[in-house]
Amino acid sequence: MPISETWLLPDGVADVLPEQAQVIETLRRDALDFLASRGYQLVYTPFIEYIESLSSLSESNQDLDLATFKVIDQLSGRLLGVRADMTPQVARIDAHVHPVVGVARYCYAGTVLHTKPQGFNTTRAPLQLGAELFGSDSIDADVEMIDVMLNLLKTTQNHEGIHLDLGHVGLFRSLVKHAKLSKATERQLSDLYQRKALPELAEFTASLKFGQDFYVLGRYASDLDTLEAKLSGEVFENHQFKQAFDALKATKAEIQARWPDLDIGIDVVELRSYHYHTGLMYAVYAPNRAAPLAQGGRYDGIGEHFGRARPATGFSCDLYALKTSQLEPVSVVVAPKGTQTDLVKAIEQTRALGFSVVQLLGNDDPQSIPHATHQLVQQAGEWVVTHI
Amino acid sequence: MPISETWLLPDGVADVLPEQAQVIETLRRDALDFLASRGYQLVYTPFIEYIESLSSLSESNQDLDLATFKVIDQLSGRLLGVRADMTPQVARIDAHVHPVVGVARYCYAGTVLHTKPQGFNTTRAPLQLGAELFGSDSIDADVEMIDVMLNLLKTTQNHEGIHLDLGHVGLFRSLVKHAKLSKATERQLSDLYQRKALPELAEFTASLKFGQDFYVLGRYASDLDTLEAKLSGEVFENHQFKQAFDALKATKAEIQARWPDLDIGIDVVELRSYHYHTGLMYAVYAPNRAAPLAQGGRYDGIGEHFGRARPATGFSCDLYALKTSQLEPVSVVVAPKGTQTDLVKAIEQTRALGFSVVQLLGNDDPQSIPHATHQLVQQAGEWVVTHI
Repeated sequence: MPISETWLLPDGVADVLPEQAQVIETLRRDALDFLASRGYQLVYTPFIEYIESLSSLSESNQDLDLATFKVIDQLSGRLLGVRADMTPQVARIDAHVHPVVGVARYCYAGTVLHTKPQGFNTTRAPLQLGAELFGSDSIDADVEMIDVMLNLLKTTQNHEGIHLDLGHVGLFRSLVKHAKLSKATERQLSDLYQRKALPELAEFTASLKFGQDFYVLGRYASDLDTLEAKLSGEVFENHQFKQAFDALKATKAEIQARWPDLDIGIDVVELRSYHYHTGLMYAVYAPNRAAPLAQGGRYDGIGEHFGRARPATGFSCDLYALKTSQLEPVSVVVAPKGTQTDLVKAIEQTRALGFSVVQLLGNDDPQSIPHATHQLVQQAGEWVVTHI
Repeated sequence: MPISETWLLPDGVADVLPEQAQVIETLRRDALDFLASRGYQLVYTPFIEYIESLSSLSESNQDLDLATFKVIDQLSGRLLGVRADMTPQVARIDAHVHPVVGVARYCYAGTVLHTKPQGFNTTRAPLQLGAELFGSDSIDADVEMIDVMLNLLKTTQNHEGIHLDLGHVGLFRSLVKHAKLSKATERQLSDLYQRKALPELAEFTASLKFGQDFYVLGRYASDLDTLEAKLSGEVFENHQFKQAFDALKATKAEIQARWPDLDIGIDVVELRSYHYHTGLMYAVYAPNRAAPLAQGGRYDGIGEHFGRARPATGFSCDLYALKTSQLEPVSVVVAPKGTQTDLVKAIEQTRALGFSVVQLLGNDDPQSIPHATHQLVQQAGEWVVTHI
């Protein structure tokens, strides 16, 4: 590799330089402080784990598995994965490491790595921040989680023009089960839903058992009232379907009551970015942005892999995506060289006021100090800070 | 893998649970805020890079290379390394990404991964925090760096009974060059120094050119005055040796003047943990601890690999090693369920006072909320916080 290229970074990986790093650092602190105020306790999860532990989101986690970098552990000879998602790690902590009898709330922030860019994002190293609530299967828990997610976006100045999308995997799943569809048919249907291919959907569902209901589910996916009117009575007699439908409706009402001005959309067949969810799902979108700002949902039973199945709901986001465009202004006070007591004291006092103070070295040029905006100079025997 | 073992973590890798995570988080913020007050600008470096970029500390970086986990980049088919040290990354930023004409100061904090535990530490995932100063080859720069390192340890309550060790690779290296020793002889000598094997050293140096000087260097490694008296005049006539000796002496004097009570030791042949240093080296030790709390040194020319060689000096430490034993007390206020205006307002006010407030969900038990110490109750129409 020629020297001229050694500074190149792999695609989807970037340095964060001072002006931006300060913005992200502030965002990280504000977000974690907000979550702490809501009772979400901070955990740090390991960067590497045995691959079996990371793959706890069994069945449907093939995407996660493909996104995970693998290395051989030189100590054990076993396969390790670099974390691609921190949710399974927090579930492991809840299930085994830090078992709490009642409701447990955790938050976390850290870099995760993806072998390839995920979805609409181009980064392979998001700074994942999230919150999880274990031990409650009530709608209240989902409502709290969505409320926390919305307040977090408000705290980080990301609430302008946002849109909340609610969904519930239980509607489609229970209908598939009720109609005893094959895996292949389920996949085809799911694909048609995601492509919003209505004419094809009409044709495909025409010959299916409960075909009209599957069509209605896709056709009126965003309208609970119309779904209620047009779906067959038999569908609502299915307990799991009814429960999912009611949960979705109740959650929407509760959130709308707390956030009367919020634009809330429903999509009962949007299942794309939810790999391991088992119930309600939620995502917040900002204007002019394809990828959600934050998303999450219910994933009951995740801890089963670690010997303790608990109800769970939570969300996560990429802190880099929450970055607002402003850069933090950096200002530096330049002080002369020297160790005389009055100078040292003046420097200490200036730092105590919140300034960054750089003291000149033997051979450097005051003009070349990056972001130098002020200087410490002696005037009539007193050290004072003046603009450069 | 049986379920009973899925929660096991690889050796040298650990979860950080809430009480401890809060301590580390506070430590991280205090340390970065302190470094910012000294004009060290925060950068975030990537977790993965092309292996050629991470291996910038050419010749003597075999240890670093062995410590680096490697993965194949699925996008480019090239070899990537997971960062095992952030110093080369910051050097890359200084050399190419964020080129500053004069003196540049950077700080960073983040997890690095090691394939095997390094030195005395048992962790394979230290939380590396460090500061680097580029663009000055003056002693002032090293003195500033050591002063910053000592003040950082003071800020993080790690200054009790500490001991500063100073060394300089230039003494041994210039003498080796002057005596035209072979690489093999240099390695043997270095090994004898590290084992403090004086009788063997005496025997080995007896037949060497400048053998008496090599012996004296090892025998009186911690005593600059005796070295000055016992080394031959010809050694001091070597410009590089003289410069290294003077730099070490001057640095010791400057630091002792600023930290009169500090215990400062000298070791001119301690080269073990310094893989890529080119000049002055510094390490701080705490009582009853084998591994240094923080260490660093000069590594001029590191940026050459990226097309811009600059003088550089800096230190780093593992934030986990700076953790003092106290755990942060966690206290949580439990509030009843409900969305009535007065309750919501009372919760907001309690949070604004700095409390963590958890609101009960539909079906959870107030007694089981982790760390619940207070509750929000209505007394005579007013919401008040009381002890549980």
